[in-house]
Amino acid sequence: MLPSESQPLFTVPGFRAAGVACGLKKTGALDLALIAADAPCAAAGVFTTNRVKAAPVLYDQEMLARNAGGIRAVVINSGGANACTGPQGLEDARRTARLAAAQLACAPDAVLVMSTGVIGQPLKMDRIEAGIRQAAAALAPDGWEAAAQAIMTTDTRRKLHVQRTALGGQPLVHLGIAKGAGMIHPNMATMLSLIATNAVISPPTLQRALRAAVEDTFNAITVDGDTSTNDTLLALANGTGPRVSDGDDTYAAFLQALRETCFALSVAIAEDGEGATKLISILVRGAADKASARRVAKAIAHSPLVKTAIYGQDANWGRILAAAGYSGVPLEPERLSLWLGRGRHRPGWARQKAGADLTPEIDGAGAEPLQVHLVREGRPYDVDEARAAEILAAHEVAITLDLGLGEAWDVVWTCDLTHDYVTINGRYRT
Amino acid sequence: MLPSESQPLFTVPGFRAAGVACGLKKTGALDLALIAADAPCAAAGVFTTNRVKAAPVLYDQEMLARNAGGIRAVVINSGGANACTGPQGLEDARRTARLAAAQLACAPDAVLVMSTGVIGQPLKMDRIEAGIRQAAAALAPDGWEAAAQAIMTTDTRRKLHVQRTALGGQPLVHLGIAKGAGMIHPNMATMLSLIATNAVISPPTLQRALRAAVEDTFNAITVDGDTSTNDTLLALANGTGPRVSDGDDTYAAFLQALRETCFALSVAIAEDGEGATKLISILVRGAADKASARRVAKAIAHSPLVKTAIYGQDANWGRILAAAGYSGVPLEPERLSLWLGRGRHRPGWARQKAGADLTPEIDGAGAEPLQVHLVREGRPYDVDEARAAEILAAHEVAITLDLGLGEAWDVVWTCDLTHDYVTINGRYRT
Repeated sequence: MLPSESQPLFTVPGFRAAGVACGLKKTGALDLALIAADAPCAAAGVFTTNRVKAAPVLYDQEMLARNAGGIRAVVINSGGANACTGPQGLEDARRTARLAAAQLACAPDAVLVMSTGVIGQPLKMDRIEAGIRQAAAALAPDGWEAAAQAIMTTDTRRKLHVQRTALGGQPLVHLGIAKGAGMIHPNMATMLSLIATNAVISPPTLQRALRAAVEDTFNAITVDGDTSTNDTLLALANGTGPRVSDGDDTYAAFLQALRETCFALSVAIAEDGEGATKLISILVRGAADKASARRVAKAIAHSPLVKTAIYGQDANWGRILAAAGYSGVPLEPERLSLWLGRGRHRPGWARQKAGADLTPEIDGAGAEPLQVHLVREGRPYDVDEARAAEILAAHEVAITLDLGLGEAWDVVWTCDLTHDYVTINGRYRT
Repeated sequence: MLPSESQPLFTVPGFRAAGVACGLKKTGALDLALIAADAPCAAAGVFTTNRVKAAPVLYDQEMLARNAGGIRAVVINSGGANACTGPQGLEDARRTARLAAAQLACAPDAVLVMSTGVIGQPLKMDRIEAGIRQAAAALAPDGWEAAAQAIMTTDTRRKLHVQRTALGGQPLVHLGIAKGAGMIHPNMATMLSLIATNAVISPPTLQRALRAAVEDTFNAITVDGDTSTNDTLLALANGTGPRVSDGDDTYAAFLQALRETCFALSVAIAEDGEGATKLISILVRGAADKASARRVAKAIAHSPLVKTAIYGQDANWGRILAAAGYSGVPLEPERLSLWLGRGRHRPGWARQKAGADLTPEIDGAGAEPLQVHLVREGRPYDVDEARAAEILAAHEVAITLDLGLGEAWDVVWTCDLTHDYVTINGRYRT
């Protein structure tokens, strides 16, 4: 069966989801999500590299080590990160899993948990308990939109993506939800995301594919350079769809679909960074190797001066070169070339063209491509302020920096730094 | 002769200074400084580690390699960084030196130059030429305040510091000026600073002392994590005062005075960071080594989430632990202890107490010391929100993080991240 228009958009056969309000958020908004699979799933996860790891991260790592072939459910709460909460926090994570297991009549080891919100406050377990009961009653195949809503913190939009492809004549589905907004500089995974698929796949193969998929997606975005204590990306495969085997063509097709799902979710997080008005994609090419290209692109993406200039629609390109210069990568200033364009960089693998050149193109999302060549061989070149202003007025800004040293490239996604970022983070707890 | 009340505050025997307006700044404010010595000086400099170096940095490095024993003057302009300006920029730096040399009747090789302002625009040499003529006519022993004013960009206060001590019965004077504000994450030196002294000292000894002095001063501050293309700190010693010899007590006394001068100037830069409302000092102690302590402190100092929370007077301490956790330094979360205090950390060497314990103390600048112990062994401890709010209402906030791993410590100085930082940098060129 191939995807058809009549299918509800956000469903995966064999999965149900729910999002409910149980009083963890003062506003009364949805704040607890439950994802349940009808049968045990293969599960994989990538987690924060922060040395200070939240209790749910430690708990999930333990469960995946023990029971990666038998996961049945995930509980996700917003309104509290359960990080820096000591032994009580770990006990709260375990109890959350037990409460959900009781509702779903499965083993506690079959339940994973994720939390997001303020660090250092204990979870309100009475509310979590009521929320899990409520969510279990609300579980439905089309409950994913409510679940995506329930995991939001300062996100302005819920983030869902469904990818429907076919593998060996069978439909292959990936459905992902994510939340982002602030404390976003994933380093193995981002804040919270979960991808459900119907593939038949072993836990080790799923883990391998997930690690490969995040490399150019979740690990290539940043909002503020702050790596969270709670970063978690989970993948659950319930085995009701096509079979994926490590080492043959099915793996490549599965990885491609998984990576595109991660790409859609991670770029949505960058675009919806706290206070953001613009999505900025940064292509560094002409690099000696990919790691150097990423390091330079990340330095630009982290520069408050670059991010505020783009917010202010000021083509202050010297700041881009200055950030590249302090990235730690050996550069030859007289070989640098810089362009500013309207639209976003789209790597070849994300353009879904077989055999396409993998170098990114700028996708103007309907608008005519518009680009100015600001710096050539380290010197000001075509500094047309009027055209630069037209480019910077757009929602999507594409920076291209050529190092003139080699053939490697990489792309990083970020957003601008705005008054609203400061407002949001100056009063986050209140 | 010991320092007396009747001496003009900002003078060094044998040096003259001037600050004039020559039209480089649109506002008509002072924008060109000239510092001149009556006799050739020993000179030393530390410069940006950014791979993209401004023309004046390249020029000064060349002059110091060639003529470090014979420097007579320094020209400093604001209103243009002369960075990313190619061969024309280097020629403009040389011509600036030649113009000053002609006015002062010295060799062009005896003149150093510094520039600050927007990157990527050529210097307006006609205005520089007129400015140098005007400044040469205005040179005076008490011209340092005008010079400090002329090198400001977005600084809200001019930065001068004079340190008068005695060495072998002779007065030893260090007079420093600096500018900072944005693009401040010095890595060998900061944006622009110049220290004049009357010591008799060889260029290599002066260079050694300068490198030692910046380590815990200019290299321990950050505003926004952006390392400039123009960072330059110069020291000039005109040899009219006491003799300083490498390897004896005079060196230690000289270094102490030089370090205190650097300390005063660099903390003033952190305090006057773009848009700043607060000075934040971060002491990391209980570290395995000093490098680890600095790395953790810098991660906290660079965190936009920590900086906005302090701006918003929100004791969101989880962000401090999260930043420590992603610093890359191995930590044991259950050993972390955290305090928040009112005032600033002051290292022992900056307290000028002979034989004092070198561990920093919090200097409340007149107010009673006030501190809350927020985290003990990785868990919330004394989270008294009312006292925390009282501390965060102060202009000076001191963060103390104990890693519980060793005896080493370090202090880093920064400021908060505010709406005004975004406003200033969203419209910097306009």
